[in-house]
Amino acid sequence: MTVKNWETIAAKKRQDLASSIPDEWRVPSALLPPADQDNVTGFPEESGWFTAEELAITNQTALELLPKLAAGDLTSVAVTRAFCKRAAAAHQLTNCLSETCFERALSTAAKLDAHLAETGKPVGPLHGLPISLKDNFNLVGLDSTVGFASHVGDPAKYESVLADLLREAGAVFYVKTNVPTAMMIAETVNNVFGRTVSPLNRRLTSGGSSGGESALLAFKGCPLGVGTDIGGSLRIPAACTGTFTLRPSFGRFPTLRCRSGMPGQEAVQSVNGPLTRTLADLAFYSKTVVDAQPWRLDPRCLPIPWRAVTLPSKLRIAVMWDDGVALPTPPVTRALQQTVDKLKAAGHKIVEWSSVDQAQGGELLGRMFVADGGKAIRRELERTGEPLRPEMEPYSQAAARELGGLEYWQLHSDRQEYQKKYLDRWLAAGIDAILCPTTPYSSVENGKFKHVGYTGVYNVLDYACISFPTGITVDKSVDVALDDSYKPLSDLDQEIQSEYNPEAVHGMPINLQLVAQRLEEEKCVEMCKVVLDVLS
Amino acid sequence: MTVKNWETIAAKKRQDLASSIPDEWRVPSALLPPADQDNVTGFPEESGWFTAEELAITNQTALELLPKLAAGDLTSVAVTRAFCKRAAAAHQLTNCLSETCFERALSTAAKLDAHLAETGKPVGPLHGLPISLKDNFNLVGLDSTVGFASHVGDPAKYESVLADLLREAGAVFYVKTNVPTAMMIAETVNNVFGRTVSPLNRRLTSGGSSGGESALLAFKGCPLGVGTDIGGSLRIPAACTGTFTLRPSFGRFPTLRCRSGMPGQEAVQSVNGPLTRTLADLAFYSKTVVDAQPWRLDPRCLPIPWRAVTLPSKLRIAVMWDDGVALPTPPVTRALQQTVDKLKAAGHKIVEWSSVDQAQGGELLGRMFVADGGKAIRRELERTGEPLRPEMEPYSQAAARELGGLEYWQLHSDRQEYQKKYLDRWLAAGIDAILCPTTPYSSVENGKFKHVGYTGVYNVLDYACISFPTGITVDKSVDVALDDSYKPLSDLDQEIQSEYNPEAVHGMPINLQLVAQRLEEEKCVEMCKVVLDVLS
Repeated sequence: MTVKNWETIAAKKRQDLASSIPDEWRVPSALLPPADQDNVTGFPEESGWFTAEELAITNQTALELLPKLAAGDLTSVAVTRAFCKRAAAAHQLTNCLSETCFERALSTAAKLDAHLAETGKPVGPLHGLPISLKDNFNLVGLDSTVGFASHVGDPAKYESVLADLLREAGAVFYVKTNVPTAMMIAETVNNVFGRTVSPLNRRLTSGGSSGGESALLAFKGCPLGVGTDIGGSLRIPAACTGTFTLRPSFGRFPTLRCRSGMPGQEAVQSVNGPLTRTLADLAFYSKTVVDAQPWRLDPRCLPIPWRAVTLPSKLRIAVMWDDGVALPTPPVTRALQQTVDKLKAAGHKIVEWSSVDQAQGGELLGRMFVADGGKAIRRELERTGEPLRPEMEPYSQAAARELGGLEYWQLHSDRQEYQKKYLDRWLAAGIDAILCPTTPYSSVENGKFKHVGYTGVYNVLDYACISFPTGITVDKSVDVALDDSYKPLSDLDQEIQSEYNPEAVHGMPINLQLVAQRLEEEKCVEMCKVVLDVLS
Repeated sequence: MTVKNWETIAAKKRQDLASSIPDEWRVPSALLPPADQDNVTGFPEESGWFTAEELAITNQTALELLPKLAAGDLTSVAVTRAFCKRAAAAHQLTNCLSETCFERALSTAAKLDAHLAETGKPVGPLHGLPISLKDNFNLVGLDSTVGFASHVGDPAKYESVLADLLREAGAVFYVKTNVPTAMMIAETVNNVFGRTVSPLNRRLTSGGSSGGESALLAFKGCPLGVGTDIGGSLRIPAACTGTFTLRPSFGRFPTLRCRSGMPGQEAVQSVNGPLTRTLADLAFYSKTVVDAQPWRLDPRCLPIPWRAVTLPSKLRIAVMWDDGVALPTPPVTRALQQTVDKLKAAGHKIVEWSSVDQAQGGELLGRMFVADGGKAIRRELERTGEPLRPEMEPYSQAAARELGGLEYWQLHSDRQEYQKKYLDRWLAAGIDAILCPTTPYSSVENGKFKHVGYTGVYNVLDYACISFPTGITVDKSVDVALDDSYKPLSDLDQEIQSEYNPEAVHGMPINLQLVAQRLEEEKCVEMCKVVLDVLS
């Protein structure tokens, strides 16, 4: 029996990852920004290390690249090489990757180019486009550690179903991105790869758990990426980096054969979705996945086509200013107020949404996450002696109590009644959407993210949600901390407000969350267009 | 504290039920068939106790009645009274009811008649039609005991969501029907109401758990009824009585706010569906429920409309002759053979479906049912000192072991992989449907039903299934027991075959099961039309 040592395993894995970046894509040390430089998004343009062509390619969105790839105006090899290089830089500046497969990527790209040259036709709607995947999407031959040392050196023997689908549509896989341990922290930090930071400000988190993706995307190291969400893991990273994401209802996009942090946990379903820089990219990706009939591949997918939606000329939107547990920090409230004002000015009907049910939703989610008493997570840690990170305290033996089967059933019954109550209230209000914060933060300093209630409730409800950048940014001169007259909603609220640091987040983008009913992904996209229109 | 006594409670409940039948609908003792008369389906026509109008009404199908009700050619009061009386007779001959609400029914019917007279318009597509409901559908003021003495005298304070929907469409509720304890026996027997028997032959079971419904329907005590299915509880009763049923995939019809035998159990979802005497009634009911947009009422329903389906001109149907666990009894094999021969003759492609995965599906279902260690069921029994029936032995403390949360997750993972494997095999075979037995039996003597594997696997898979009568009946001169050369597949198989009694089931209808993919209810209906066509 070999004695396992997580630190040795992790150190070697980090070394292997660094070594997987070829010399040509290693940033020369002379060019590296100093460690105390916060914003590194200017690096590609300013360093002189990228060619004009590489910059021209990587500054484009997916929808700008795809027609050129399909027409042969850009080769997939050129596009892939450019994104490989920019992703490598992103990693060296923000620690956003967990795996690379550059050779596989270039080989795939070359085959796609040959196919196009030979047949004159793209293989599918994503022909030649590099797409980054969150670490938990299995790709043959690559680890899916999800931050556990125990999973290092256990490469996948099969592809995740989503990867199958995207590859058939023409996508090129070239990197996988970092996550927090078991994907169960709202920032991106684990004992194997360490912490991913935001390229917009490296003192701030890129969010979690899809925070490797959001950091990479914000750096334009990918045209679009795919993450997952079980309590906010897509929407929080999008919010922290000012990008777009769709949390679809379970069954729209295939989820099978990914590495889970809590395999078989189904009381609340993990879903996956795109992280993009534009709503158009988000809509295109979503339609593409559904058009591929994922129910052929994943037995839990629903045979619901991507549907055309006609919105009412004026929307009826409920605004939820806070969730009754913790107020949003001042910039988020300001962005919400401005958005509401502009929607009203455009003639849309705004009603108030009571936070009365939010705390219960969060409490249900908490019970679901530790229904195994934290055993699944601790089992992986124990295999290599890896310590439980302090952020994971709810999964400790002391904090988590395993449910018996009968209690598990009670949890399901409670969730069913909760879902019914929320739906009845929604229909009684006659609303099209809820507009609310995605998180209390624009972004927040590394280590200080404290509350996932704004997103998690909609996982319990399985509603379609978009986290979108408002175009509004934090202004430290306006977004000052709450004054002494403020009465905290809770200890957590007091903590969040007292930690709010306008100086730290000055200039950061502010996202909001638009919530549609379950399985209304198409409507959510169309409504988000309306909101963006009034904001523009 | 009051000492509870299940026998006293049960006796009083039976008395209350009997008393709830008004004198005018109590069969005069002189007319009652002798206890040893097997077939009582002729009673309404032969006894002279029914008027010609009552017979004319109750002999019609739902689709024959509805246009007359909508046009005012029949009043809902007349139709309701006729079915109340015939249901009362059915109960006195087969013990098929658990609750009555005749006054509510006649009052509802009178209001519907008044509405039609006043407005000239029916309230909805089910205007004025009496519909019977399985005991577990909550109706305000009525018990939903699901066979437990503990639930006697605990009338529902709210309506089940399906009842809301059907009532809004114009249905009239007048009776609820008997079930086995917790709805977890494949026959209909419990300690409160006792045993329901088949009106076709009272020595035989009407199946379970929706066996009160099937007995009532076979006696024409309802034009259609609604039952539920978690392992075969619709399909088995339909098979035992030669009637039709659809087991829909979860999410097509609303399930919320029914009494469950195992509340919150979700590893396999209970669904509900119609029991009808014609496929046309089945299709009409299904379309009506979906057209009512049940996702407005039940948050777990799917916003999938009732879709038009175009079948290929020739179907590709896989036939599964046996499930590898227990052979069907000879009449079922003969009916399957004849159906296959006629499908082939009509030009449809028949391929063989291997039983390789069936045993595993049954094993998964068994683990799901007792994931609470049988506690939910035993808790109800203990409240009144009610004994566990011998059929329920798998739920005993000795037999059932409660899963911990972590094991529960493993069960989900195993189910996910099983579903994927089955789907892949289905798509690789390129089939439209599987045709197979519904049960090993045509019907079987009371107390001898032994195997739910043919149905239960499709609950685990959540596929759309129809159990339909072939029009073929048991012929004791042809359907002789297997001879000595027969090698049993298992001990269970040997038991089933050795108990096969051609004399007992002579003349009984034989059903088969047509299985479509998940959420292909519309296609399943259309394919069943094709099968019925070749059989006619």
